[in-house]
Amino acid sequence: MDVREILEEVKKGTMDTAAAEELLRANPASRSYEEMGYAKLDTDRRERSGFAEVVYCQGKSDKFIADIFQKLYELDGEVFGTRASSHQYELVKERIPDISYDPVSHILKKEKEGKKRIGCVAVCTGGTADISVAEEAAQTAEYFGTHVERIYDVGVSGIHRILSKETLVRSANCVVAVAGMEGALASVIGGLVKNPVIAVPTSVGYGASFHGLSALLTMINSCANGIVTVNIDNGFGAGYVATQINRLAERGKSSE
Amino acid sequence: MDVREILEEVKKGTMDTAAAEELLRANPASRSYEEMGYAKLDTDRRERSGFAEVVYCQGKSDKFIADIFQKLYELDGEVFGTRASSHQYELVKERIPDISYDPVSHILKKEKEGKKRIGCVAVCTGGTADISVAEEAAQTAEYFGTHVERIYDVGVSGIHRILSKETLVRSANCVVAVAGMEGALASVIGGLVKNPVIAVPTSVGYGASFHGLSALLTMINSCANGIVTVNIDNGFGAGYVATQINRLAERGKSSE
Amino acid sequence: MDVREILEEVKKGTMDTAAAEELLRANPASRSYEEMGYAKLDTDRRERSGFAEVVYCQGKSDKFIADIFQKLYELDGEVFGTRASSHQYELVKERIPDISYDPVSHILKKEKEGKKRIGCVAVCTGGTADISVAEEAAQTAEYFGTHVERIYDVGVSGIHRILSKETLVRSANCVVAVAGMEGALASVIGGLVKNPVIAVPTSVGYGASFHGLSALLTMINSCANGIVTVNIDNGFGAGYVATQINRLAERGKSSE
Amino acid sequence: MDVREILEEVKKGTMDTAAAEELLRANPASRSYEEMGYAKLDTDRRERSGFAEVVYCQGKSDKFIADIFQKLYELDGEVFGTRASSHQYELVKERIPDISYDPVSHILKKEKEGKKRIGCVAVCTGGTADISVAEEAAQTAEYFGTHVERIYDVGVSGIHRILSKETLVRSANCVVAVAGMEGALASVIGGLVKNPVIAVPTSVGYGASFHGLSALLTMINSCANGIVTVNIDNGFGAGYVATQINRLAERGKSSE
Amino acid sequence: MDVREILEEVKKGTMDTAAAEELLRANPASRSYEEMGYAKLDTDRRERSGFAEVVYCQGKSDKFIADIFQKLYELDGEVFGTRASSHQYELVKERIPDISYDPVSHILKKEKEGKKRIGCVAVCTGGTADISVAEEAAQTAEYFGTHVERIYDVGVSGIHRILSKETLVRSANCVVAVAGMEGALASVIGGLVKNPVIAVPTSVGYGASFHGLSALLTMINSCANGIVTVNIDNGFGAGYVATQINRLAERGKSSE
Amino acid sequence: MDVREILEEVKKGTMDTAAAEELLRANPASRSYEEMGYAKLDTDRRERSGFAEVVYCQGKSDKFIADIFQKLYELDGEVFGTRASSHQYELVKERIPDISYDPVSHILKKEKEGKKRIGCVAVCTGGTADISVAEEAAQTAEYFGTHVERIYDVGVSGIHRILSKETLVRSANCVVAVAGMEGALASVIGGLVKNPVIAVPTSVGYGASFHGLSALLTMINSCANGIVTVNIDNGFGAGYVATQINRLAERGKSSE
Amino acid sequence: MDVREILEEVKKGTMDTAAAEELLRANPASRSYEEMGYAKLDTDRRERSGFAEVVYCQGKSDKFIADIFQKLYELDGEVFGTRASSHQYELVKERIPDISYDPVSHILKKEKEGKKRIGCVAVCTGGTADISVAEEAAQTAEYFGTHVERIYDVGVSGIHRILSKETLVRSANCVVAVAGMEGALASVIGGLVKNPVIAVPTSVGYGASFHGLSALLTMINSCANGIVTVNIDNGFGAGYVATQINRLAERGKSSE
Amino acid sequence: MDVREILEEVKKGTMDTAAAEELLRANPASRSYEEMGYAKLDTDRRERSGFAEVVYCQGKSDKFIADIFQKLYELDGEVFGTRASSHQYELVKERIPDISYDPVSHILKKEKEGKKRIGCVAVCTGGTADISVAEEAAQTAEYFGTHVERIYDVGVSGIHRILSKETLVRSANCVVAVAGMEGALASVIGGLVKNPVIAVPTSVGYGASFHGLSALLTMINSCANGIVTVNIDNGFGAGYVATQINRLAERGKSSE
Repeated sequence: MDVREILEEVKKGTMDTAAAEELLRANPASRSYEEMGYAKLDTDRRERSGFAEVVYCQGKSDKFIADIFQKLYELDGEVFGTRASSHQYELVKERIPDISYDPVSHILKKEKEGKKRIGCVAVCTGGTADISVAEEAAQTAEYFGTHVERIYDVGVSGIHRILSKETLVRSANCVVAVAGMEGALASVIGGLVKNPVIAVPTSVGYGASFHGLSALLTMINSCANGIVTVNIDNGFGAGYVATQINRLAERGKSSE
Repeated sequence: MDVREILEEVKKGTMDTAAAEELLRANPASRSYEEMGYAKLDTDRRERSGFAEVVYCQGKSDKFIADIFQKLYELDGEVFGTRASSHQYELVKERIPDISYDPVSHILKKEKEGKKRIGCVAVCTGGTADISVAEEAAQTAEYFGTHVERIYDVGVSGIHRILSKETLVRSANCVVAVAGMEGALASVIGGLVKNPVIAVPTSVGYGASFHGLSALLTMINSCANGIVTVNIDNGFGAGYVATQINRLAERGKSSE
Repeated sequence: MDVREILEEVKKGTMDTAAAEELLRANPASRSYEEMGYAKLDTDRRERSGFAEVVYCQGKSDKFIADIFQKLYELDGEVFGTRASSHQYELVKERIPDISYDPVSHILKKEKEGKKRIGCVAVCTGGTADISVAEEAAQTAEYFGTHVERIYDVGVSGIHRILSKETLVRSANCVVAVAGMEGALASVIGGLVKNPVIAVPTSVGYGASFHGLSALLTMINSCANGIVTVNIDNGFGAGYVATQINRLAERGKSSE
Repeated sequence: MDVREILEEVKKGTMDTAAAEELLRANPASRSYEEMGYAKLDTDRRERSGFAEVVYCQGKSDKFIADIFQKLYELDGEVFGTRASSHQYELVKERIPDISYDPVSHILKKEKEGKKRIGCVAVCTGGTADISVAEEAAQTAEYFGTHVERIYDVGVSGIHRILSKETLVRSANCVVAVAGMEGALASVIGGLVKNPVIAVPTSVGYGASFHGLSALLTMINSCANGIVTVNIDNGFGAGYVATQINRLAERGKSSE
Repeated sequence: MDVREILEEVKKGTMDTAAAEELLRANPASRSYEEMGYAKLDTDRRERSGFAEVVYCQGKSDKFIADIFQKLYELDGEVFGTRASSHQYELVKERIPDISYDPVSHILKKEKEGKKRIGCVAVCTGGTADISVAEEAAQTAEYFGTHVERIYDVGVSGIHRILSKETLVRSANCVVAVAGMEGALASVIGGLVKNPVIAVPTSVGYGASFHGLSALLTMINSCANGIVTVNIDNGFGAGYVATQINRLAERGKSSE
Repeated sequence: MDVREILEEVKKGTMDTAAAEELLRANPASRSYEEMGYAKLDTDRRERSGFAEVVYCQGKSDKFIADIFQKLYELDGEVFGTRASSHQYELVKERIPDISYDPVSHILKKEKEGKKRIGCVAVCTGGTADISVAEEAAQTAEYFGTHVERIYDVGVSGIHRILSKETLVRSANCVVAVAGMEGALASVIGGLVKNPVIAVPTSVGYGASFHGLSALLTMINSCANGIVTVNIDNGFGAGYVATQINRLAERGKSSE
Repeated sequence: MDVREILEEVKKGTMDTAAAEELLRANPASRSYEEMGYAKLDTDRRERSGFAEVVYCQGKSDKFIADIFQKLYELDGEVFGTRASSHQYELVKERIPDISYDPVSHILKKEKEGKKRIGCVAVCTGGTADISVAEEAAQTAEYFGTHVERIYDVGVSGIHRILSKETLVRSANCVVAVAGMEGALASVIGGLVKNPVIAVPTSVGYGASFHGLSALLTMINSCANGIVTVNIDNGFGAGYVATQINRLAERGKSSE
Repeated sequence: MDVREILEEVKKGTMDTAAAEELLRANPASRSYEEMGYAKLDTDRRERSGFAEVVYCQGKSDKFIADIFQKLYELDGEVFGTRASSHQYELVKERIPDISYDPVSHILKKEKEGKKRIGCVAVCTGGTADISVAEEAAQTAEYFGTHVERIYDVGVSGIHRILSKETLVRSANCVVAVAGMEGALASVIGGLVKNPVIAVPTSVGYGASFHGLSALLTMINSCANGIVTVNIDNGFGAGYVATQINRLAERGKSSE
């Protein structure tokens, strides 16, 4: 049915307005957002993706940051921000006093209590310095309702460490592999498991690591199957997709 | 239990050798492969990943290629190769007469009949020139038992084309977005769906596309959530991970 | 008015269906395109942009190319393709016998007769080897109804050549500056004129020109005002935008 | 007529010196500038381009900056500087007490009152962090007499936001699209409008955005027609060209 | 013998459990490490490589650094860290009061007394600014028991300086060539000696040295034979491999 | 005196037209060139630089190349082209039967007989594969009247070879150092001589030489004094500047 | 003793001329080479390095190649060339009829019979396509008298393959690790052995492997100790250094 | 004569030791330098190049810097350092109280009085921000005895400024062209003059200028003849070579 036909049915009374609206509301231009002038909060996102909007704090000006947190908190009853500075934490705390800030992952959040965490995502790191990014991934996944297993400091220079965790890694619906320098961890894990591996290159390293470019190229070029890659230091992105995959695996199970 | 304890149990007769072997066989160094001198076929792969080994044909010498196809065909009753040349097709056909070759996707395969294809993966392209890579993704997913929907030539310069397919795209367990030049397709789709988007940059373009680098960077830096990236022109990799995700979603459903 | 309100008016009979359709047709997802399976011709484009769709021939397969030209020729009574090979010319000629092919610009077109060309765009090159790209720009602009002045081989190593053409260059509504190697021509012209300069880096050069990257960076970093840049060798893009600017300048004049 | 002929006419009295000067003044080497030793202010620029010289403040030493502002203010009765620091604001304020400084756009200016702003340029951003660059573009265009519409935070991850503003964007003589990260906004807008789009990549992002390189490549490689690009974070350049295009469109109108 | 056969022998009593364990312990997954939660110290490393684990201090958080030093010191009776800051020195000193810190090489160590240093490794630099990296190499080699000759400031712009030391350089089992800027030193030394040259590019330089990339490329592309390269500023890596080579040369000698 | 004053003097008869023309002819826009439509031959160049225009053959179309050679030959009685193909040689030979072509340097020239060659320029190469570029430099310098000494295959992996030629190299007014791979030759020579060294990186090499980029960076970053660099494989540019320097040194001598 | 003192001793007769020559012959400028005009064969190299000069065939012109092989064959009684084409083989065969050519490694050689091969170097590859480079390394090492173990197709996507060869790999004096794509093999081996690993990146791969750059960066940034790197596809360089290391280990043994 | 023959002559008394020493002193390994442990001052440099050693201050440690200045001052009676910080100035001033520091060029020097400055070098800049680098070039040339003309702020966006100085620029023995951003100044000057142009790219700019890379590529790829390039911001290098060229031109004159 095209627009004219729908309208004719409405006019004739053979279709009620609610049904017609349903059909016509598919117009993407009519979806909702919250206009704040300097920002347009995507309030339709939960409808489209199943997840509320998250705040990417880096580069947001002091004046805007608190308003955005407050608005989202009012809309959703919880709020989650990444790459927040301690200065931004101070600003937001004035509006949401019990907001919490983790200086390792730079996550600034107020989370609803009693969330159930389902399935299993394994978050692995090559070294200790990668933990900051890994925690961004892990806490993102947890915020969105995922059970997470942390397996840290299992880089390939001592391959027995990841091999000793093989059973745990294989049991996850999805593995997040976080590594800097040459980033070889993702390839090794990819060769051990049957589910997807989300590779996160980090900017850990020096010299020809070029702030994570070396690890990014390693992961993009992996000879192992089942590996996909996100941006350098993008723990959030990995945690988000891991949650999507875990949700598919678990909702599948529970809905049948 | 550690190695010594297992051995003591065996010695005492309190554990039988089959059970002990089960425990000890976790030794990754003891897994199987087929030694061919110039190659070591990873016959343990199906055990670890659920999928048989696939042949990456590019760069394989004339002398090796037919042997490798034959060996895998004998082991699995079917065989699948990517990036094959028509010359390689001629060579392999002498061993496996009814092998088929698709000059668009450069896939060389002999597939078991009557496979069931489950779930849904959508494969989208920005333009017509990206179809070669998209078909590699689609046929890989189909070979591994996935139902695929093809949505081609829906690039962002005419945004209404992908919007007209929104319902179909949203229904997939996973979307593969294949695009060259500036590669913006993945970000737009990422903003429309709730399941993961696997972005495949292609080498389609000229000048500052730098053989796909521009599209790769676009996809890696996507501001949309739920996007992961594979190598330039890596249709196989995208089809493989899409299959993993689709399998998780569908096995979940059926096993419950 | 939102969708529900429009529907209520239609139902009550206070708005006719034509008026309602007008309002609702703004749905971008409902715009037209020609579905060809492997391609979706953007037949709505002329509506949105004022220009029909053009064929980017490079990378199009032999099987598709003739169909696409034929379909667009049927729709518009003329057709224009860029980056065509002589082989593609042979294929298309079987469908459109009087199509013409220019081996310098690689343009393949069948153009309506008697077009009026308005305004003025100047197309300049640094050297003789840049003419191929310049002709793509010039002929694109002419196809879309623009008067073009060609000023070739006026690179900065003999600055008196462009200075001798200053009056002509200043009289254009827009200047297209095409140059390879170090690409300094655009900056010099930018300092002489009052209207926009569209800089086109070319892949002419060797060594550290890196196939046009050097000229691209020069143009993007120009210290002169009024300079914008398109992709390396993208004569079409420059001719298209020059036409848009020329049209604005001339329609303004004639419509008042 | 060549130089000798002109002189002979003057000598014979058949041409007066004013007419001869008019012909001979085309000598580019004889155009005016203000010699300040460390700088040569291009006082001829208004004659050539219709716009007075603007101060690029970044990197100018403390000693020079105030003199330059003062000199231009004396010449033109107004003055406009970009990329100014608050420290430079303090220095200039001692000379021009009512100069104003905007810490968001880093613009330092003293503007004549009662300027008329004509036509329409739309300035769009992908996100909130791009506003700093967008304001440089918008305020530049306004300083040069252009009417500006600001449409902020309409990035492609929530495509309905820009679609809801389609009519407004299409009504502009020129659109400035400001975006960081993957910079896909320009391509989407390019597919919606009929007038030129000036794409401004920003350094907003992290990791493989490489300080704006990713967005720059996206924009340079856009598959949409009608897109031209300026340097990373170059709001001024975009505002300048947008003004040129808007002026052509509006002067055309009014002069007929 | 495979696993089953070993188990049958144990069961029958024809092999004792110690011998069986010896055979089965080749399982790489069963090797030891020290689990610290945020880190897994590779205590098996000395077994595999002959050298204890070393601490890469850069990027380690304040909380972890002292624990890691203390744990390794307890295990080995000495400890060695690279790229340590003076702040980290303060933190570790609280646990290991007589630890020493060298602000030139940024090495933080507590070394056993009375070590014998064998063989000969020559460490050369192009300039004075490369000494920081050279000392990291030299002190690493010394920590692991190597005799080191320092030959500093012998860059190619005054070739007579390295030529005057030719006999000394030729006598070393291995030469470490440390240079920034264009890094030509390694090639010149490579042409003079018969033993391996380990080239270390440094980030010394400016402009197109790109933080050591230029020197790295020089060394990787050396036309001289016998040159291998490590990462930019990686004095540790060079000192480590030099030690391995020196050990092979000297152990060979002494063991016969 | 400005234009008006000169004209007033002419009008009054206090300045004759020849003197006035002399003053006014400084107008760069009035300098001569030969308009050929697709090219503007810079016939004023000899006046400005002392050297006639040279033909850069690469990329010139078959139709233009012979005309350009013929025109320049008519103007100057000799003609010199670089980067010519053997196909272009055939085309030009039809017009200038005794033109000569050197397949090593790809120089296509007809040279006046009996030229005197003055001064001394030394042209050195790192290896045998660099000779093609070195000959372009040497023959360019010779064409413009310079005496050249060839010193080939003296790369740094056998440093004694260049040292054995030190006296000869030091006697040159200018040294051209041609090298690929890591390009260290220029630095070593720079440390031995007192006159300028023109470094020419070549595309000789493989892998990380990146078609000459490595050698270019080496030469640009040289720690030796007195080194300047031209484009990769740009033998002509080096020969041209060497000639300029040699001319300054020798004309100085002879003119005093 | 300086030059003057030596001369005084000779003059006085207190030192004989042979002893004086010995001291003075240290002049690097006086070492021998074979002047061939276009080449200077480094006949002193065997003296300095213990190995005769090897021919790098790529880029050598047809005219020179046979002469160079012949000259070296006459000097040494054997000759070894790398990167030879089959065309060059034909040319050289006319001079040295029993020269042999291996189309896999592109090695062209005539080797003395009955060479003893000492010690052990392990040459490993990630995949089958890397064998071409691995053979260049292996045959280079063998030519210079080294015993080689080949371990091919043991890439990290099936980690059990290299683990099954751990004992063999650990027994080598030096390991050459040859891998393309992401090149992770070197890091994994580096974590298993105690002797140096020479990493050879190969150009095997596609897309973002950038012709071996990705593998090169991986290896340069390896987190494992004991890894050094050579140029992309530089099997010769790896084989040469492996030989140097093996020689040190074995000569040490035998000389004591 | 070879070494043995010389010795025989000395022994026989047919050659005196002074003559023999003269011949034998050509040994490059025997040239002088000042050993300072951490540095080897190249005291032979004046002999080889005609110029004393200059101090590159950047990266020199506090402890070394004053000693090096003092030592060179003692040797030469004057001393010249580049890239000095104000902190280093304070340190050196304690040893050489009347040393002078220029914060614009960062030159730290104590110069002999009454130097004669010969010839002419023109130093030009594109903008005001390039003056820092230009002054390094100018003062270097002056220190070594060259007469310098400064022509600042003559960038190509107002081409009449450099054209108005054409006579002055053409009169120089050598032109130094200093420019950032797109660096087009060198090409324009190269087209105007007959003597060499030394192009100095600067790091002035932002975004895609990539800290001077854009300007460097522009200059390296210049289509104008007679242009050579030095490193980004390398004013010293340009001033040094300009001095060499000027010296050749002037010594030639005066010596005849």
